[in-house]
Amino acid sequence: MKTEKQKMLDGELYMAWDPELTRDRAYARRMTRMFNQSNETDEELRTDILKKLLGSTGEHIGMEPNIRFDYGYNIHVGDHFYTNFDCTILDVCEVRIGSHCMFGPGVHIYTATHPIDPFERNKGPEYGKPVTIGNNVWVGGRAIINPGVTIGNNVVIASGAVVTKDVADNMVVGGNPAKVLKEIEVSH
Amino acid sequence: MKTEKQKMLDGELYMAWDPELTRDRAYARRMTRMFNQSNETDEELRTDILKKLLGSTGEHIGMEPNIRFDYGYNIHVGDHFYTNFDCTILDVCEVRIGSHCMFGPGVHIYTATHPIDPFERNKGPEYGKPVTIGNNVWVGGRAIINPGVTIGNNVVIASGAVVTKDVADNMVVGGNPAKVLKEIEVSH
Amino acid sequence: MKTEKQKMLDGELYMAWDPELTRDRAYARRMTRMFNQSNETDEELRTDILKKLLGSTGEHIGMEPNIRFDYGYNIHVGDHFYTNFDCTILDVCEVRIGSHCMFGPGVHIYTATHPIDPFERNKGPEYGKPVTIGNNVWVGGRAIINPGVTIGNNVVIASGAVVTKDVADNMVVGGNPAKVLKEIEVSH
Repeated sequence: MKTEKQKMLDGELYMAWDPELTRDRAYARRMTRMFNQSNETDEELRTDILKKLLGSTGEHIGMEPNIRFDYGYNIHVGDHFYTNFDCTILDVCEVRIGSHCMFGPGVHIYTATHPIDPFERNKGPEYGKPVTIGNNVWVGGRAIINPGVTIGNNVVIASGAVVTKDVADNMVVGGNPAKVLKEIEVSH
Repeated sequence: MKTEKQKMLDGELYMAWDPELTRDRAYARRMTRMFNQSNETDEELRTDILKKLLGSTGEHIGMEPNIRFDYGYNIHVGDHFYTNFDCTILDVCEVRIGSHCMFGPGVHIYTATHPIDPFERNKGPEYGKPVTIGNNVWVGGRAIINPGVTIGNNVVIASGAVVTKDVADNMVVGGNPAKVLKEIEVSH
Repeated sequence: MKTEKQKMLDGELYMAWDPELTRDRAYARRMTRMFNQSNETDEELRTDILKKLLGSTGEHIGMEPNIRFDYGYNIHVGDHFYTNFDCTILDVCEVRIGSHCMFGPGVHIYTATHPIDPFERNKGPEYGKPVTIGNNVWVGGRAIINPGVTIGNNVVIASGAVVTKDVADNMVVGGNPAKVLKEIEVSH
């Protein structure tokens, strides 16, 4: 018999108000609050919080406040990651971010979703779909990445884009919903 | 002779720098600041602030910081309301939200607007138009709802949508400006 | 031989981790943090911070928290400027805002950009393009203004617009990417 947490991680319908998940979210909220209340000079504290809170982290990662995560432990970032101000990640399922990725301010990544039918939704069960981002991806300011999306390597996402579908390697996408704007001729 | 506050509530041109309105906004800013600075463990304090600040509230309402409201007293929410992080509501006119509604992170609702003519606008008068949201509505992350919009029951608003027109019952809308994406076959 | 700061200001490729620029950003982060942590009653403190932090300011300027700037000193605002909650300006190059401008909540202005080629981008150099906004401009909530954009006088930018190109005088623009919605018949 699966726990609610295991159902959540497996992308099945689960109840978020489960005690274990409620405790996990409370931990993430305490840690992100400490991060967001810290001073810009407390680099060591900020790095410590990220190392403890996230599922896995590479070398040279940096985030600017305010960060907002559901659990933290479902977020995996590679080496040389930087996100500018006010990144929100709803990580009920895994969010895997490759190496050498950079996010502009206000990027939102959602893995959380709900039944479309209002009667099913009101009963409480919800579910998630993982998000995967390749290497060398630049996500422009205020972009949104929706549940279930996979983004290839070397992709550039324009500011304000709402990414609802997978994006192939080497593409520039933008708009709402995001569409391919051009292909990048990668220099190597 | 109407007060500036009464003109505001009635959707007429009014001066926001009126002393009574300035005092009302200062109260809302103090209360929302206290909410936003509170710890995630202070659930009782958070609920007390919402009960005092909002025009009316049903049972089981929850909001995540940071909340940003102009007045608070023009916001009416039904039972079982939840908004995720960083909800902003400019409530110069009424914002009525039904029961069983949920908002993703970063939802903005605007009732405030200004004259389009720059010379009229620079003189200072502004005005508002109410927003109404039905029952069982799920507003996706980073959606914007513009002044004067009425949203029906059972509606789903996609993440990043900019809702500029009324939405009928049982519709999924998305895009900028938001358009109908499909109709929901409600199970009951 | 140019400093990295001079290259940045001139719109050339530069390294952001230069010690002088790192120190300048740390100052802006301290000042914006003090602003964002201040109480709504500390109007004098808030005005003092803006006068010290920004490149130049006219009379009667007001901002609501949270403000987020890269440097502050590249931001120049005219008389009678008001921005509602949560304005983010990445000011690696100049952002010049005329008189009688007002911003809704959540407006983002970006001058910062990066090479599209991932191998060039990963080496670290980045660059900027200035943004200019005329007089009597109303920028709606959650609008984004991209690097290099010039916006004319009397312009209205709809909520949620992503402005990627120049906008002529007296236009209303909206959408993602923003397009002209109508021309304003100015009363004088």
